[in-house]
Amino acid sequence: MDDFDIEYVAEPTLEEPVLIEGLPGVGHVGKLVVEQLVEELESQLVCELFSTHLPPQVSVEDGITSLVSIEVHAIETDADDLLVVTGDHQAQDSVGHYGLTNAILDIAAKFNVTQVYALGGVPTGELIEEYGVIGATTTEEQQAPLEAAGVEFRGDEPAGGIVGVSGLLLGLGKRRAVPAACLMGETSGYLVDPKSAKAVLEILQELIGFEVDFGSLEERADEMEDVVRKIQEMEQSAAPAPTDEDLRYIG
Amino acid sequence: MDDFDIEYVAEPTLEEPVLIEGLPGVGHVGKLVVEQLVEELESQLVCELFSTHLPPQVSVEDGITSLVSIEVHAIETDADDLLVVTGDHQAQDSVGHYGLTNAILDIAAKFNVTQVYALGGVPTGELIEEYGVIGATTTEEQQAPLEAAGVEFRGDEPAGGIVGVSGLLLGLGKRRAVPAACLMGETSGYLVDPKSAKAVLEILQELIGFEVDFGSLEERADEMEDVVRKIQEMEQSAAPAPTDEDLRYIG
Amino acid sequence: MDDFDIEYVAEPTLEEPVLIEGLPGVGHVGKLVVEQLVEELESQLVCELFSTHLPPQVSVEDGITSLVSIEVHAIETDADDLLVVTGDHQAQDSVGHYGLTNAILDIAAKFNVTQVYALGGVPTGELIEEYGVIGATTTEEQQAPLEAAGVEFRGDEPAGGIVGVSGLLLGLGKRRAVPAACLMGETSGYLVDPKSAKAVLEILQELIGFEVDFGSLEERADEMEDVVRKIQEMEQSAAPAPTDEDLRYIG
Amino acid sequence: MDDFDIEYVAEPTLEEPVLIEGLPGVGHVGKLVVEQLVEELESQLVCELFSTHLPPQVSVEDGITSLVSIEVHAIETDADDLLVVTGDHQAQDSVGHYGLTNAILDIAAKFNVTQVYALGGVPTGELIEEYGVIGATTTEEQQAPLEAAGVEFRGDEPAGGIVGVSGLLLGLGKRRAVPAACLMGETSGYLVDPKSAKAVLEILQELIGFEVDFGSLEERADEMEDVVRKIQEMEQSAAPAPTDEDLRYIG
Repeated sequence: MDDFDIEYVAEPTLEEPVLIEGLPGVGHVGKLVVEQLVEELESQLVCELFSTHLPPQVSVEDGITSLVSIEVHAIETDADDLLVVTGDHQAQDSVGHYGLTNAILDIAAKFNVTQVYALGGVPTGELIEEYGVIGATTTEEQQAPLEAAGVEFRGDEPAGGIVGVSGLLLGLGKRRAVPAACLMGETSGYLVDPKSAKAVLEILQELIGFEVDFGSLEERADEMEDVVRKIQEMEQSAAPAPTDEDLRYIG
Repeated sequence: MDDFDIEYVAEPTLEEPVLIEGLPGVGHVGKLVVEQLVEELESQLVCELFSTHLPPQVSVEDGITSLVSIEVHAIETDADDLLVVTGDHQAQDSVGHYGLTNAILDIAAKFNVTQVYALGGVPTGELIEEYGVIGATTTEEQQAPLEAAGVEFRGDEPAGGIVGVSGLLLGLGKRRAVPAACLMGETSGYLVDPKSAKAVLEILQELIGFEVDFGSLEERADEMEDVVRKIQEMEQSAAPAPTDEDLRYIG
Repeated sequence: MDDFDIEYVAEPTLEEPVLIEGLPGVGHVGKLVVEQLVEELESQLVCELFSTHLPPQVSVEDGITSLVSIEVHAIETDADDLLVVTGDHQAQDSVGHYGLTNAILDIAAKFNVTQVYALGGVPTGELIEEYGVIGATTTEEQQAPLEAAGVEFRGDEPAGGIVGVSGLLLGLGKRRAVPAACLMGETSGYLVDPKSAKAVLEILQELIGFEVDFGSLEERADEMEDVVRKIQEMEQSAAPAPTDEDLRYIG
Repeated sequence: MDDFDIEYVAEPTLEEPVLIEGLPGVGHVGKLVVEQLVEELESQLVCELFSTHLPPQVSVEDGITSLVSIEVHAIETDADDLLVVTGDHQAQDSVGHYGLTNAILDIAAKFNVTQVYALGGVPTGELIEEYGVIGATTTEEQQAPLEAAGVEFRGDEPAGGIVGVSGLLLGLGKRRAVPAACLMGETSGYLVDPKSAKAVLEILQELIGFEVDFGSLEERADEMEDVVRKIQEMEQSAAPAPTDEDLRYIG
């Protein structure tokens, strides 16, 4: 086994696809978007990426185990074809983040990907009313169409830069001359945030031109609203409020 | 010295053996089972696995030192031959867990192992009355015979998946097409748990068809009962109760 | 991508240049000096050094991303030519510090660098009146000219040695027979310290014989004075004083 | 630069020398013994061992820097020749401990070392009256002569085994068939302990047959006695006692 090991299970013919990455992160925004795409549209598992820099772990579903991996699915839409990248875990260390990203870009090169979108959340520290989507790109040319679709560019935001595989898809993508953009939904940062995911997904629809059902994302958003309402009631009553830590990634 | 170094000391002829792994973990359940097998049945050291990813340490017995290693013993039974894997330590990092597991599967391949059992404990957080054994497998076919022997499959349990070498024996075993199952004895998680080990060992006997004396495991269980009783008395008296940390792995 | 990857963007002809390193560190002294040189003199980006041992991160400026890197700029002065090394981050681990330093020394060798200056701050733990500059060198011959320029040598100071890339430029430089010296401006250690940077820059001017405008460094020093004054007023009033952590790297 | 890099500066002709290792550790016992040998007897630097797994750091003495290294000195005595190994730092990680130890054993092989002594301290947690020296060996044959010289073997002590380079010199030495023993001076574990070092040095003299002046070790022991006395006075007075942390490695 190599440190980074791509195992192909299908080799679909895709026409200059767009790659969309949504690994776990702030508010699980990127992961929620990509899960929605894989579940609601017709998707095909293309390959799994295994690595000694991912956690040494299997998940269990109906008593059957699956080794921790990054999965790449192909989706054919009326508009551009998609390659979507997701998983339940990030790399364990810096070398792992670089290696996974390079492997993802190798897969992108194999399928002649013309554009990379890395999805994520940007924490605001407070509950959100209007869900803005902030952008960052590897080149200036990408910004006008993104702005036309509703993405905001705010100078040097996010101030701390973009970390992990999302950041490196832009950093290493730029070195490999693949146009790449990061779309970050605003989110409190305290909770899994389907509303932020919906805002990002609306932008993606507009940009790429496909349509997807929002049903399950809206359901999940309603569930989270209930959670938030209960928290607010608890705060107003005498009960001690849950800490930030309690709220992080409820759901 | 390579990062993962197998040193063979014997090359017994085994017929399609079953590999049983019991490294330290929750309640030391897996390790207790495997120690019982090595001590009570006629066993032969086959190889030691050394690694720069194990702790940089020697143990001392009668003033003689032994380098930290994973040991593999061969046991011939009336039923299937066994290869049992144990040791006093886990790997220090993720790369180590993957590397050790691959080395163990290399050993399994050399001896034409037909089935892998990874043993462990699953923490319940409370003292146990009935010791259930939960299973997870790499393939569906393995589940019926395990259920017949008393193993329970409970949907997505354990919720956190299975970590370390036990988990990877299934994760990497599946990729190498070796049937592998994990048997996890329920245990409080606070104490070394010979009773949970006994429950797992009874399942193994049934599955494989060998017989082993339970004497020393039962003795050890009685000792632990005394420890638990004293703790309960202390809790009922005014003395401050020992913390979880105090109780962890007493014995 | 290699673990340490030098990407050349220009190959200027330099005559036996002096290499000056200023990465982030105590009081950001070295980084401030090098930024001043790059901004005030005519500079040209020569190469970027990327590494899997740097943080997995991009920075964002005007919505455009840049992968974390170490940058090397060439500056032609009336006196010696300069190669200046800077960046926003240090390596993440020990192997990274060694690897980055060796890559920097490879660049130095390519341009026939005759002298290396590693710049930094030495923390005194108290606010400074007179900003001394302490030196350490790989060879005795370097000390007389440094002392003539105002650098102090104080026996075994700094007591804890010199860590990170600055330290290794001397440690590995000595092994490669490149004369190397470390110039450390005294600084409280609590704040970004443009005054300490100015003291180091004055020494460099004297040593190498170039001239640079101090304007922006002095402006920044004035801003920091305001910060310090406000802190002192807060301390004298009843308000709870900011902690050391609050003050670290304000600015 | 390799990960582990031996740089020879002299190649003395030694007759079947004994290798003695004393790196920093509990009570600095091993390091104190080896420093005494290098200072009091005629010693010659044979090689330095550099590694990317040692701290990225230089020390400074009279303004001149030295890269962190492990040093090996040769000492010719009336009895056996000695190769003594010391330094100011341990490796940073498990891979580093294994790699440094293998490099030391490569040096031992080059000079046909016939016996390895790894020196250290064993913490007792209380102030010591009689300084015992506990032993551990790779083979039984080594124990009788050690016992005759006053070394005690106490079953499975030290219970936690022996960690770091000292432990691995036995663990990896055994695999390379070099007789190796660890001599551990009892020490409180709270303070640098020259008395414990003296007890270990007396055993070494007896074993190998050389003689060395104890002057500076005894001086240092007297200084430490003063420190301990002051601590005891402070404890008896109303002043709050220094914590364990305060006392660790005073001196």
